[in-house]
Amino acid sequence: MIDAARLQARIESLGAIGALPGGGVCRLALTPADKAGRDWLIAQMESLGLAVAIDPIGNIFGTRPARPGTTADAPHVMIGSHIDTVATGGLYDGALGVLAGLEVVAALNDAGTETDLPVTVAAFTNEEGARFAPDMLGSLVFVGGLSLEEALEIRGIDGTRLGDELAAIGHAGTGAGPSAIAAYVELHIEQGPILEDEGLQIGVVEGVQGISWTEVTFSGASAHAGTTPLRLRADAGLAAGRTACGVRDIITAIGPGQLGTVGAVTLSPNLVNVVAERAVMTVDLRNPDDAALIEAEAALATLIAAAAAEANVTATTRSLARFDPVDFAPELVDAVEAEAQALGLTTRRMFSGAGHDAQMIARIAPATMIFVPSQKGISHNIREYTPPEDLARGTAVLHALIARLSTP
Amino acid sequence: MIDAARLQARIESLGAIGALPGGGVCRLALTPADKAGRDWLIAQMESLGLAVAIDPIGNIFGTRPARPGTTADAPHVMIGSHIDTVATGGLYDGALGVLAGLEVVAALNDAGTETDLPVTVAAFTNEEGARFAPDMLGSLVFVGGLSLEEALEIRGIDGTRLGDELAAIGHAGTGAGPSAIAAYVELHIEQGPILEDEGLQIGVVEGVQGISWTEVTFSGASAHAGTTPLRLRADAGLAAGRTACGVRDIITAIGPGQLGTVGAVTLSPNLVNVVAERAVMTVDLRNPDDAALIEAEAALATLIAAAAAEANVTATTRSLARFDPVDFAPELVDAVEAEAQALGLTTRRMFSGAGHDAQMIARIAPATMIFVPSQKGISHNIREYTPPEDLARGTAVLHALIARLSTP
Ligand SMILES: NC(=O)NCCC(=O)O
Ligand SMILES: NC(=O)NCCC(=O)O
Repeated sequence: MIDAARLQARIESLGAIGALPGGGVCRLALTPADKAGRDWLIAQMESLGLAVAIDPIGNIFGTRPARPGTTADAPHVMIGSHIDTVATGGLYDGALGVLAGLEVVAALNDAGTETDLPVTVAAFTNEEGARFAPDMLGSLVFVGGLSLEEALEIRGIDGTRLGDELAAIGHAGTGAGPSAIAAYVELHIEQGPILEDEGLQIGVVEGVQGISWTEVTFSGASAHAGTTPLRLRADAGLAAGRTACGVRDIITAIGPGQLGTVGAVTLSPNLVNVVAERAVMTVDLRNPDDAALIEAEAALATLIAAAAAEANVTATTRSLARFDPVDFAPELVDAVEAEAQALGLTTRRMFSGAGHDAQMIARIAPATMIFVPSQKGISHNIREYTPPEDLARGTAVLHALIARLSTP
Repeated sequence: MIDAARLQARIESLGAIGALPGGGVCRLALTPADKAGRDWLIAQMESLGLAVAIDPIGNIFGTRPARPGTTADAPHVMIGSHIDTVATGGLYDGALGVLAGLEVVAALNDAGTETDLPVTVAAFTNEEGARFAPDMLGSLVFVGGLSLEEALEIRGIDGTRLGDELAAIGHAGTGAGPSAIAAYVELHIEQGPILEDEGLQIGVVEGVQGISWTEVTFSGASAHAGTTPLRLRADAGLAAGRTACGVRDIITAIGPGQLGTVGAVTLSPNLVNVVAERAVMTVDLRNPDDAALIEAEAALATLIAAAAAEANVTATTRSLARFDPVDFAPELVDAVEAEAQALGLTTRRMFSGAGHDAQMIARIAPATMIFVPSQKGISHNIREYTPPEDLARGTAVLHALIARLSTP
């Protein structure tokens, strides 16, 4: 029913927008490359006959109406994900969920299928969180978890204001997404190694682990590297180093399930012979178990205080994102498993390590996800890859599930 | 004999060029601010009647001729230092040595003194090493320790080519410094706390400690912070963190005399939820004892290898600067002490923690330095400060010594 080649062609067309010289893409949220991707997506939606709406945070919704005579307030079945990427992203993270949604619509169109409920394909703004924190920002605003006003004031890693960047690309819309959602399903690459390691085709996603992002700023004093005795230093670079090491030690202490990453560190003035006066760094902690995540956060606070004390600097912290672990709707999880097995595919239940828009939609509607394998588990890297057959398998499960959900 | 107010006025005039909003200055080498400082300096030299020459690496020499009838090949008595600064510099580091040189010339002019040997005031290019490594680059080229061709190819922290930047500010000269130097004397702020702590007025500088600068590049793979298990990571940020911590541990292990600083760290892509694929960092190691410095360098190499192995990344290193400890000419060191004591000033013999142009000139001529106190030992910081009385005391010693050396 679904056309794997057509799906693959759309993946490659979108992947050409913001393409990096060595492969992969950079479509950081609300940049000109993101705008080009969005404009391309809207044109694709329109060519499939979808009614397009953009909401004030820039989420894009393309809706295929239900059969004639259906009441206007019928809840929608929604397929969604995002098309923004990290700076060193691949072609599949996010894009797959949106483009598989278009393929499901195309297959319904081809078959002349009329559904009882409208089907909406959504692309949410700034899911990655790589330019503006928090991640899953567009879907968070959509579900009312963050006010539009607050979101528009958020500053990006480049100092820009989200509202200005959204307006500059012309995607601050006046439309709205569906007011009622019967079910939400997101197809995504696993972004981890488990399915490939175990030789399985479909991940049945039961939930998403908790995410805690902290920005730490250490403030000391710049000083001469050749003349300043240790006792007179207030070395922000040392505090940052101790924190980076300590995060790894926290993971080891808390044990399996705990992840921690220091992905960003910026020193000032960042010169070879000047003790750093300022260090700004991020810490990403994740755990599927909220109690363990809270324990890791407490250990991080202790670590930061000890690093600041040793280095004779002050520390301030700011939460960039904090999302509890989420369990998806059991009946939808069961339905993914049933549809996949009915198609003769091998499956495994699993938790998601990455954050996803589905975890936000889960606050207001039954939601779940479908995973397909990621080669070598590589993601947030230009070498992210999933073969066309796997994309097609996941899209076939999505199609079968949406067909059933939209005509209950 | 010297005019403290005139000296102070020149310090403030030069300090206004590249002034930072919160105080202090930024005149990184070969930037437009450095050009403005250089042009101002040349005008000052000319107004004092000095014959100005700029050599091909941009070193500026202003010469006061010896009494009429002196042979053209008479060796010069040279006073020198630099006017470039770090990004968060003060008004005194380097500037004092050059401007005290002008004050000595002005005092000789006022008194109508004729000297047996010409007196040259020199300002050397890129002493700080903050924009282009190595530090003391202009004086190193002047003494033949680095070829002009190699120096012009050096890339700055901003990726620019030194030769292009030098040409762009119009300071790639065709002149030359003196071909023979009878003696070189550099007045500088101590940049450390010792003179102030001990309540002394003049530091009699016996030498400069060894300096070893290494740039370390760790190369791993960008990966998703939420989905990539530790065993699959190649985390350049972790390797950088372990190295920063380990440098501090090396200092502690080697003991008093050893200094180490990680002043610069740059991660790529530097995002909260992406394991860093690349880290470039600098390590500044110093010790007055070369054997101990070599021990520290060996420990650093072991540390880098261990950090790379733990983080599953590769490491490459590049030496940015390596200068052995230098002992100044004993007869000049004795002469500084004698002149200071003859002026009734309190003195102390000491080693320099910072690198200075004097250590390069020491390769080709008798050289030494005079230190004045630095408030709280603060330098490479906008709060660097030395009171006018201390500047005047140091300049008086310089004047007395130059008067004696130039008419032996
Ligand atoms: N799916 C995905 O990569 N989301 C980005 C948010 C995160 O998990 O860091
Ligand atoms: N005097 C001075 O600050 N020189 C800069 C070179 C160094 O780092 O020591």
